[in-house]
Amino acid sequence: MLQCRNGKRTGAAAVKMAVDMVAEKLITKEEALLRVEPAQLNQLLLPQLDPAAVKKATEIASGLNASPGAGCGQIVFTADDAVAWTKEGKKVLLVRKETSPDDIAGMAVAQGILTSTGGRTSHAAVVARGMGTACVCGCSAVKFNGGKVVIGDRVYKEGDFLTIDGSTGKVYDGVVPVAPATLSKDLEKFLGWADEIRKGSVRTTASGKKVAGFEVRANGDTPQNAKDAFRFGAAGIGLCRTEHMFFDEPKLTSFQKMIISDTTEERKENLKAILPLQEKDFYDIIKTMEGRPVTIRLLDPPLNEFIQAHSDAELKALAKKLNVDRNKLAEKVAALNEHNPMLGHRGCRLAITYPEIYETQVEAIALATARLDREGVKHNVQIMIPNVVSANEVKQIREQALAVIEKVNKAKGTKLKFEIGTMVEFPRAALTADKLAEYADFFSFGTNDLSQTTFGFSRDDYSKFIDSYLKQNILAEDPFTTLDEDGPGALMGIAEEKGRSVKSDLHLGICGEHGGDPASIALCYKLGLNYVSCSPFRVPLARLAGAQAVIKAAKAGKAAKSGAKKAPAKKAAAKKPAAKKAVAKKAPAKKAAAKKPAAKKGKK
Amino acid sequence: MLQCRNGKRTGAAAVKMAVDMVAEKLITKEEALLRVEPAQLNQLLLPQLDPAAVKKATEIASGLNASPGAGCGQIVFTADDAVAWTKEGKKVLLVRKETSPDDIAGMAVAQGILTSTGGRTSHAAVVARGMGTACVCGCSAVKFNGGKVVIGDRVYKEGDFLTIDGSTGKVYDGVVPVAPATLSKDLEKFLGWADEIRKGSVRTTASGKKVAGFEVRANGDTPQNAKDAFRFGAAGIGLCRTEHMFFDEPKLTSFQKMIISDTTEERKENLKAILPLQEKDFYDIIKTMEGRPVTIRLLDPPLNEFIQAHSDAELKALAKKLNVDRNKLAEKVAALNEHNPMLGHRGCRLAITYPEIYETQVEAIALATARLDREGVKHNVQIMIPNVVSANEVKQIREQALAVIEKVNKAKGTKLKFEIGTMVEFPRAALTADKLAEYADFFSFGTNDLSQTTFGFSRDDYSKFIDSYLKQNILAEDPFTTLDEDGPGALMGIAEEKGRSVKSDLHLGICGEHGGDPASIALCYKLGLNYVSCSPFRVPLARLAGAQAVIKAAKAGKAAKSGAKKAPAKKAAAKKPAAKKAVAKKAPAKKAAAKKPAAKKGKK
Repeated sequence: MLQCRNGKRTGAAAVKMAVDMVAEKLITKEEALLRVEPAQLNQLLLPQLDPAAVKKATEIASGLNASPGAGCGQIVFTADDAVAWTKEGKKVLLVRKETSPDDIAGMAVAQGILTSTGGRTSHAAVVARGMGTACVCGCSAVKFNGGKVVIGDRVYKEGDFLTIDGSTGKVYDGVVPVAPATLSKDLEKFLGWADEIRKGSVRTTASGKKVAGFEVRANGDTPQNAKDAFRFGAAGIGLCRTEHMFFDEPKLTSFQKMIISDTTEERKENLKAILPLQEKDFYDIIKTMEGRPVTIRLLDPPLNEFIQAHSDAELKALAKKLNVDRNKLAEKVAALNEHNPMLGHRGCRLAITYPEIYETQVEAIALATARLDREGVKHNVQIMIPNVVSANEVKQIREQALAVIEKVNKAKGTKLKFEIGTMVEFPRAALTADKLAEYADFFSFGTNDLSQTTFGFSRDDYSKFIDSYLKQNILAEDPFTTLDEDGPGALMGIAEEKGRSVKSDLHLGICGEHGGDPASIALCYKLGLNYVSCSPFRVPLARLAGAQAVIKAAKAGKAAKSGAKKAPAKKAAAKKPAAKKAVAKKAPAKKAAAKKPAAKKGKK
Repeated sequence: MLQCRNGKRTGAAAVKMAVDMVAEKLITKEEALLRVEPAQLNQLLLPQLDPAAVKKATEIASGLNASPGAGCGQIVFTADDAVAWTKEGKKVLLVRKETSPDDIAGMAVAQGILTSTGGRTSHAAVVARGMGTACVCGCSAVKFNGGKVVIGDRVYKEGDFLTIDGSTGKVYDGVVPVAPATLSKDLEKFLGWADEIRKGSVRTTASGKKVAGFEVRANGDTPQNAKDAFRFGAAGIGLCRTEHMFFDEPKLTSFQKMIISDTTEERKENLKAILPLQEKDFYDIIKTMEGRPVTIRLLDPPLNEFIQAHSDAELKALAKKLNVDRNKLAEKVAALNEHNPMLGHRGCRLAITYPEIYETQVEAIALATARLDREGVKHNVQIMIPNVVSANEVKQIREQALAVIEKVNKAKGTKLKFEIGTMVEFPRAALTADKLAEYADFFSFGTNDLSQTTFGFSRDDYSKFIDSYLKQNILAEDPFTTLDEDGPGALMGIAEEKGRSVKSDLHLGICGEHGGDPASIALCYKLGLNYVSCSPFRVPLARLAGAQAVIKAAKAGKAAKSGAKKAPAKKAAAKKPAAKKAVAKKAPAKKAAAKKPAAKKGKK
């Protein structure tokens, strides 16, 4: 048997030990689930270099193994390039002297991060580990030299390929094949128990509603994401962002033309060109999920994210591509510019000013689903409206969507129905949740925006002060890492109560990045959410963290009961037989487990 | 007697009639107060064009009547010129294509603002209304042509005279005489009644707290503002913004040097230069208010508002002025840039990262007050912390402020004490109001920011969609004009309940622009606020609107009581004698009033 000390043992060892101990009946499944830190699972799920390929690869440098996993991609030297190239569908490796909070967006999309300076606690290392991204730090062989990097006697420019292994710190020339992460048999069994626990859970919310089950879904925008989600055990897609679907050409050009259109007719014309392409995108992702829920969010970001020109040369090139006058384009770009884009003309606001955008998206969803329907493929598609602040937005957009769906049903001879729900990501949505619930079939909490607006912290700017806030204990946690119970959490509680006061079984989920953070998952369970949705690679972590939330809440509940006063305790006693049984079952295992570690300690 | 039909009669006539009818005992004071629309008072309080002169004047263009009142002056084309010429004793009219936050200082000193583009929610319009400055926007006849403006076939250069009427949107050639605003005897009497009603009011909040009185204060940053506030009957200064105090040279240069400092020592050095100048600013404004409350808000906006360079030439000039390397300055300016400045590094966040900024401001306030104290001048100064989201911010900044005040007390031999309170302008502040109340002596609702974050609407950007929202009835009101009861209003209710659960007599006010809007004032009364604060020129409107809120709430309360079921009605009956008396007093007058208009109608 493996040693039992909690701590720095690897995730694989922790899972294996837990599974073995259950097999030996030393501990219960519940106890086993509590013995593994959710974060430990991350390292089991990271891409690895193909060992055969590594033997043939050319090692050109080595640095600190700062964040495990492997990464291969075209190198870029700025975070902006990382973002831009990724939008173009390229896989990039970010190479920097060091990183700063300004690089976060680029780091988030990179396959790996390589820095020439900094140690294991440098910004790059800490952030990469948090993101589960491969990182090699302090690789002093990497020299920056006027727009190029020199490594040994080799010179690399942006776009050249490099591969890093964050588990060993080695850097390889060119492409070394990376094998995607897989779940071991032990881990599958272990997470299966976590699924059982979550599925069988029942809790009562602060508002007095009984909620059964606690699912884990994944955020995914592509069929590849959907496959990953599937592989890692997601119960569905909780957030399919549609904006990414506009970035591939020729969709991007048509969409850009739509954006600079002067008339509704022109806008419709350009959207028409995108319709069949977006139908194909939806078809692929819905098909992959084989009847599991797929929640598709209609267009969310401001239009200026699709049409940017930072220099005169860029403007000229864009004007040429779109076949418009350069000055006219410059005016359009300037008009799209916003002082606070996060609080600007985006999400469903675009559908109030330009209904044809969402109508086209809904048509594409309906057409894709109709095709699958006729092909006999299972489907379970939900349509989600972002940035809602008023019930009237939901009412109007819902009516427009229903008309489009009806049109498709008539044309295709189908009888499709879609749940149409709303994001709750601005405080006013939470505060008016009873009104929203009259028109929304479900709520999904967008906790990124909800945290931004509840705190008044821009995620793109708060790096200027958050370190001071944490160091001086003004805030206990970074609110974009762990969902804040007093702020956005309080609004979610209000939304739960108000929403379910109108529809008692209203389905609630979370699709912000907090959906992959253990403490936030526990809060979501407490608040009575039906599911969390997170990035595919965090699904195993969330499956475990969710189960731990269930087990801990049950324990806390029992402790509260046994600590209660005599009079109410009598009532509880009437229910106890069942509870006692469970305790009796566990007791021997518990005792054994408590003793074993101590006994083994001496043998280390 | 004048005709009694409500409607488009002038404010002066409405007030005179109401006062006359009370004198003739035809109506009660309460009835009189309900007969004048608060908005009608605006036209009585703004500089007006002399009607005889208008007939002879040459109208050369017209635009949107964006901010009422009249303005006449020598035209200038930049905010800098507006400031410089005003210092030379000239009266200027600022003429721009559009305005931006950089123009604030120039707008503040201008007699009027004329722009060739932009609508009623453009920067120029919103700011001008806030300042009580006449503004004509979107006047497309105004063409800029190389250092001159062409209007029709006339050419104007800087220094030529123009006159605008912001109530009609008309632009006149040359000088048209402008009469300054004053309160007529009738209006003073009328508003005196309003003050009585508000002063004597008592209501019970939703949280069950009894609140007596309902004050009107003014927002004012300069002694001139304070004098205006006084003249128009404000009970104090509810918001004294300190950022404007940094814009005058030589303070601006020192402050800019502080901003680009690399070290705390450098920052302190530059702040030291500002200290005596800011002390003088505070001394003047506190002295003017003669012991009435003056609530001073510590620095609020992001630092980049003070240091901007939009072109290479501007950068070069700024580098020369600050005596720093141009490239270093360019880096600093770039680093200060924010994606969403509204949600960025501002307000008390600056005091967490750079405590010396607020410490200097508090020292200036304490020194100014100590001087007044020794001179035997009355003072009642409150210090207000902006942008708070956590009780720990208030706790820490409060402790730092108390240490500075103690230091001044020791040095000056005074025993000054200041109330230190917090703005509630982000949702998390409202949601954690019980915790804030442990360290805050008062709350002031910043409803501009609270509306921005609750809706996720940027005031600088929402003009792109708000018209669609209002036209399609998605929203009933523009949330930046009228405080939204369901969103920010709900959060204010939560803050009231939570805040007063800790300090039952916690003083609550509002200092956002809503403080000058009648419907918003009524909501503030309902929510249990102790005062509203608005721009000096809206004080009379607010005095009346507040009294109307009191009267209407009392009426609604009575109606609810008499409409209540038998059983509870019995209880009410026990209290009735007093209420009956009041009704009896009013009844005859009411009847008479009700009949008179009908009788007179035929004679029109």
